[in-house]
Amino acid sequence: MMIPTTDKVRWGMLGTGFIAERLANAFTETRRATLVAIASRSLERAEAFAQKHDIHRAYPSYDELLADTDIEAVLIALPNALHAHWTICAAEAKKHVLCEKPLALNANECTAMIDACGANGVLLMEAAMYRFQPQIEHVLRLIDDGAIGEPRLFYGAFCFPFTDTSNIRYNKSLGGGCLFDMGFYPVDFAKLIAGAMPDGAVAFAHYHPECDVEIIAGGSMHFPTGMIALFECAFQTDVRTYVEIIGDEAEIQMPDPWTSRGTRKEVLLIRQREVVESFDLPDPNSYALEIDHFSECIRT
Amino acid sequence: MMIPTTDKVRWGMLGTGFIAERLANAFTETRRATLVAIASRSLERAEAFAQKHDIHRAYPSYDELLADTDIEAVLIALPNALHAHWTICAAEAKKHVLCEKPLALNANECTAMIDACGANGVLLMEAAMYRFQPQIEHVLRLIDDGAIGEPRLFYGAFCFPFTDTSNIRYNKSLGGGCLFDMGFYPVDFAKLIAGAMPDGAVAFAHYHPECDVEIIAGGSMHFPTGMIALFECAFQTDVRTYVEIIGDEAEIQMPDPWTSRGTRKEVLLIRQREVVESFDLPDPNSYALEIDHFSECIRT
Repeated sequence: MMIPTTDKVRWGMLGTGFIAERLANAFTETRRATLVAIASRSLERAEAFAQKHDIHRAYPSYDELLADTDIEAVLIALPNALHAHWTICAAEAKKHVLCEKPLALNANECTAMIDACGANGVLLMEAAMYRFQPQIEHVLRLIDDGAIGEPRLFYGAFCFPFTDTSNIRYNKSLGGGCLFDMGFYPVDFAKLIAGAMPDGAVAFAHYHPECDVEIIAGGSMHFPTGMIALFECAFQTDVRTYVEIIGDEAEIQMPDPWTSRGTRKEVLLIRQREVVESFDLPDPNSYALEIDHFSECIRT
Repeated sequence: MMIPTTDKVRWGMLGTGFIAERLANAFTETRRATLVAIASRSLERAEAFAQKHDIHRAYPSYDELLADTDIEAVLIALPNALHAHWTICAAEAKKHVLCEKPLALNANECTAMIDACGANGVLLMEAAMYRFQPQIEHVLRLIDDGAIGEPRLFYGAFCFPFTDTSNIRYNKSLGGGCLFDMGFYPVDFAKLIAGAMPDGAVAFAHYHPECDVEIIAGGSMHFPTGMIALFECAFQTDVRTYVEIIGDEAEIQMPDPWTSRGTRKEVLLIRQREVVESFDLPDPNSYALEIDHFSECIRT
């Protein structure tokens, strides 16, 4: 089914950094969404980004983009510490908001964002793009179908070496640190599997001596369903990307749970240390799927 | 080198349960140790066990075995809750003590056991038999040689389905529960890797509704070296036996870290998700190695 261009949701984006690049690229694959405007604090950066990604309008401030009445939805691709402020501004400008993960730096900020979007009648979604991978839907269906029995333990890891301390990830005042950046994934996925918020959570972390952000962290959570989750994340270890969901009868292993690579994804069903079934799943651009999903929510 | 029978350490064992069977079998492979006496609370059980394992003397009480002046060392193969009491009795009878893991139910009991053995000039060792597997020495040497850089994260799992609630493992008053029984292994191994006690530790657990012992548990620890460890154990999930030690440059995976199977053990060195080296190691009887090691400590 072709969606006429006029029916596509018209998006604007705040920010031109690393994740903004990925999101702009994703719009070449979206079916229900089109990126019509970009804003940066610098007109030069906004114009360069607009030219590179074939975006019609470039704004030299976030406020000016939010004042553009042609824009229906906004992507917040700013540093973590700015998510709350600009989500609330966007809501007040009557734009629907897809905000990069983590939604904010604490629960109070999140509540204020949710309230602002509610009061202005716009939708708000946290950009947990990994959730839109077909492998995630497949795993949730396997669990629903009883393939592993009751999920009892969850183990998730997301680590890679990233030692450039001049990067935003090492900037404490902008919401840096590996827990927000990568710990988000296993923590969020454990919540998705449990279908609930944890009723207990503890983590240990190591801080960079100068930057004062966590560079290695690991912890555990307990869920009301009875599931116990372990998670780890790090900027300064070897690469690790794993999820293992252990039920009372079998377990699921996901060697590559988080990011799109444009290849294929493998999901393994294991019983008594033997692979009993292996699933080969497509690996589409999860940013494009996420933007299309939110656009569909806006239209319906 | 042959050790003359007269030079072998003469052992007695308290208990005739599951682990006592394994230990008695191990004596057929020990070079420096011989099992000369067994004690049970029932003469019938002691005699049946002695006959089965070709042990010369069978005692109908632990006290009578401890009074046997021919015995130099004692294996405490009793339920966890009895470890402290009988270790102290054995020490007072001037026997060296190899006590099944966990050494006791709390730190106070451990301190009393250590003090009693010190005061009576006898050796005390916790029977962490997995430590005597060649794969453990190999992994420690790999880490010492810098194969993974600095160990930053440790993940260890020991789970299997064990649902017979009439078993001692489900008996709270005897020190049951999966943390003492299987959680011991990853917790102990993390300590061995870090070369230190944790300075922080937290776990979540699920309890059996009737037996009131943990059947599923998971938690995290922090070590003064900076390493963070995650561990899980369970009586009521699918089988899982894993250790992964993640350094800042590479990681070690051990698919079968805990028990002897008499086959081979695989240790993998992994960098950026690729196996860069695989080690194939022997899998001897670790109970026999442990008893021989302790016997050697006694003789030297």
